[in-house]
Amino acid sequence: MTIDAALTELSTFLGNRLSRSKSDLDLHGANETYFPLTPPDAVAYPETTAEVAGIATICARHGCPVVGWGTGTSLEGHALAFQGGVSVDFSRMNKVLEVHAQDMDVVVQPGLTREELNTELRATGLFFSVDPGANASLGGMAMTRASGTTAVRYGTMRDNVRGLEVVLAGGRVIRTGTRARKSSAGYDLTGLMVGSEGTLGLVTELTLKLHGVPEAVSAAVCAFPDMGAAVDAVIATIQMGVPMARIEFVDPNMAAAFNLYAGAHFPEAPHLMVEFHGSDASVAEDVARFREIAEEFGAGGFDWATKPEDRTALWKMRHNAHYASQALRPGARVLVTDICVPISRLAEAVEETRKDIAAASFPGTILGHVGDGNFHAELMFDETDAGERAEAMRLSERMVERALRLGGTSTGEHGIGVGKLDYMAAEHGPAWGVMGDIKRALDPGNIMNPGKVVRLN
Amino acid sequence: MTIDAALTELSTFLGNRLSRSKSDLDLHGANETYFPLTPPDAVAYPETTAEVAGIATICARHGCPVVGWGTGTSLEGHALAFQGGVSVDFSRMNKVLEVHAQDMDVVVQPGLTREELNTELRATGLFFSVDPGANASLGGMAMTRASGTTAVRYGTMRDNVRGLEVVLAGGRVIRTGTRARKSSAGYDLTGLMVGSEGTLGLVTELTLKLHGVPEAVSAAVCAFPDMGAAVDAVIATIQMGVPMARIEFVDPNMAAAFNLYAGAHFPEAPHLMVEFHGSDASVAEDVARFREIAEEFGAGGFDWATKPEDRTALWKMRHNAHYASQALRPGARVLVTDICVPISRLAEAVEETRKDIAAASFPGTILGHVGDGNFHAELMFDETDAGERAEAMRLSERMVERALRLGGTSTGEHGIGVGKLDYMAAEHGPAWGVMGDIKRALDPGNIMNPGKVVRLN
Repeated sequence: MTIDAALTELSTFLGNRLSRSKSDLDLHGANETYFPLTPPDAVAYPETTAEVAGIATICARHGCPVVGWGTGTSLEGHALAFQGGVSVDFSRMNKVLEVHAQDMDVVVQPGLTREELNTELRATGLFFSVDPGANASLGGMAMTRASGTTAVRYGTMRDNVRGLEVVLAGGRVIRTGTRARKSSAGYDLTGLMVGSEGTLGLVTELTLKLHGVPEAVSAAVCAFPDMGAAVDAVIATIQMGVPMARIEFVDPNMAAAFNLYAGAHFPEAPHLMVEFHGSDASVAEDVARFREIAEEFGAGGFDWATKPEDRTALWKMRHNAHYASQALRPGARVLVTDICVPISRLAEAVEETRKDIAAASFPGTILGHVGDGNFHAELMFDETDAGERAEAMRLSERMVERALRLGGTSTGEHGIGVGKLDYMAAEHGPAWGVMGDIKRALDPGNIMNPGKVVRLN
Repeated sequence: MTIDAALTELSTFLGNRLSRSKSDLDLHGANETYFPLTPPDAVAYPETTAEVAGIATICARHGCPVVGWGTGTSLEGHALAFQGGVSVDFSRMNKVLEVHAQDMDVVVQPGLTREELNTELRATGLFFSVDPGANASLGGMAMTRASGTTAVRYGTMRDNVRGLEVVLAGGRVIRTGTRARKSSAGYDLTGLMVGSEGTLGLVTELTLKLHGVPEAVSAAVCAFPDMGAAVDAVIATIQMGVPMARIEFVDPNMAAAFNLYAGAHFPEAPHLMVEFHGSDASVAEDVARFREIAEEFGAGGFDWATKPEDRTALWKMRHNAHYASQALRPGARVLVTDICVPISRLAEAVEETRKDIAAASFPGTILGHVGDGNFHAELMFDETDAGERAEAMRLSERMVERALRLGGTSTGEHGIGVGKLDYMAAEHGPAWGVMGDIKRALDPGNIMNPGKVVRLN
């Protein structure tokens, strides 16, 4: 067996940092959504880039799959070893290596989580902006091109990774990018690696952009008479050039779930949750302009959170949307999916999805980063009921078809993994083949997270 | 001859839109910097994507080089057919195809120039932000990953291209990206193509991000006692989170050149030229905060341009820096180079370059987009003097070595072409080999702008 031969050699190489214990395998075979338990054959715990390169060398020689693991919070099965092989757990590579305050960047190892990074940065007046909700590892966030609530202002991982160190199949170690803020020196390999889901290599170091902690922050929730009004208010706010730091939509079901799970007291109506960052004066101006726009679209019930603890409570509630949704049907499995469409088609996309959910046999919620045209549905289905499972899958598929029909994408931020592989041909046409060409060029043995993103013949 | 066979077939395919007239060949063999006249074997004027695909198909079959041509304003020899072949001139593919005001994007053909686009957008309240100075074609700007004065606020071409249509070698036509504002659906082929300098394919359509025309704009020039003070003022402004729309540095020689060429009356001292965009209130606040910071670093002689015509005059002068520099030594050739370093090393990089220029046999100027850590030197050498030419090359090379030593890049925005090919190995190490792997995978016959960006064995 090629995998067995690799494991024998890896065991010699890593000693007790190659684990084959059942608990470890199960832990690295689990996921937060609807995929079955899929344990790898072993879990490696490298501590250095050289060790990761050693793992890639050994696995390439034996044709053994290599699957990166951060915190296991990805949502499309990215980190599951469906073809067996080694799960490479980066939890021992979790250091902040360099902080460059003047340059507003930081060099970190991939196993560090975003919350750990922001804790380390507390004294600097700087912060790392990308916030997908989960306290994910930064390596994992880069690999799925994560974004979240603040992307509308500060960008996604695509915009916030300045450079990478990557171990390729066969053990070649490359550095992409520099610490300069921009470059025209050759192909953008940083951009190619970000979002490649570990199929081209394993990230062993990241240089990330930081942002200044704003002098003033103000957040609010308000209710709208209908979803179209809420979305139109978002479009108007963007077009007026009001710089939003976050703008989140929740549908009436989601509002009800927050009431149930987090003790909120929202009317069961569509809501926007917004946040503004800047100087005292600019935030005050932005708040006033947003309020004016929102009221034009019928918004009411404004609840402003200017104290840090109130804001923390607001965004904690938002971040727990997954668990709040689940509370609508205890014991259910949650299929969480995301699509992203041009803003002009957002109201249509949300409304059609809403109708699908209203007609479904199970409860569902809609929420999203509407400033980007990106929204999620959480579908609480009974996993013991094959009919419900199929219905949930079909609803999710209809969302993707809708996104593509409206000029959007099958996933704004969750990624492809295996969960959305079936839509790649429809979304990309012949460009998907080009992705396959690149994969073949960089990983001819197809050992790097095989079966994800591309299909090789 | 393979090229001759291709030309025969292309001539049948394109009729009189394949030109072999000497004037046309010379026009497409010229450049704005120090490369010798390098005429291609023919110039093709396609009008449709299908024609571009036909050209790529015919040329792949015969092994004939294909070199894209926009306006010929690139600075590192990108558009020159050093290995002969066909120059593909996109001037007949210069239409705005779709304007999506609500989505703040536009779909254009590659031959359209940035000024033409902004003229077409005048009634929309939106504008295309990337401004490299030259009225370059948008296809060319994408291919060199252009940026310029406004990148500090609105980003470079990397940040402002949402999607592309690309013709690959052999005639495959792909679409990258969507009209959604973000996506996690597979490898970022848009990002891979932007900055690839036509070595992976020819762009036939671009979807570009637009920005709202700001309600208020204010620009100013001020002088500093020394370069370190000017750069430190920039760093402090960034760190205070004051959102600059432009922040340009000019050295004392450049100030003198503006006096000579544009009738300015600057003291021969380092200057910053700045611009702020926003609401009336936010611009007023930004102006006040910048002034306060600049004065702390000894700035004086503030000259504010709030009227549109004054601002236009200011930025026109800045954009003509190339010609103003040339006026310091009429008849000289100008070697213009650019590097980009981490902001914290900018003062050092500028100061060392200044010393090199002061010690040179010819005049030179320094100016740059200092908010990005990016600056240029313009070196006016006598091209009939081999010693001066070598000295100019050596000075430029020292700038690149300096950039790499300081953690930066050999080019912030001009690109590699052939002019900076010799530095790719030093900058990227084994990652340059990965670029070669990608080139081979997508263009196995090496017909797409051969000899640029990568070296294939």
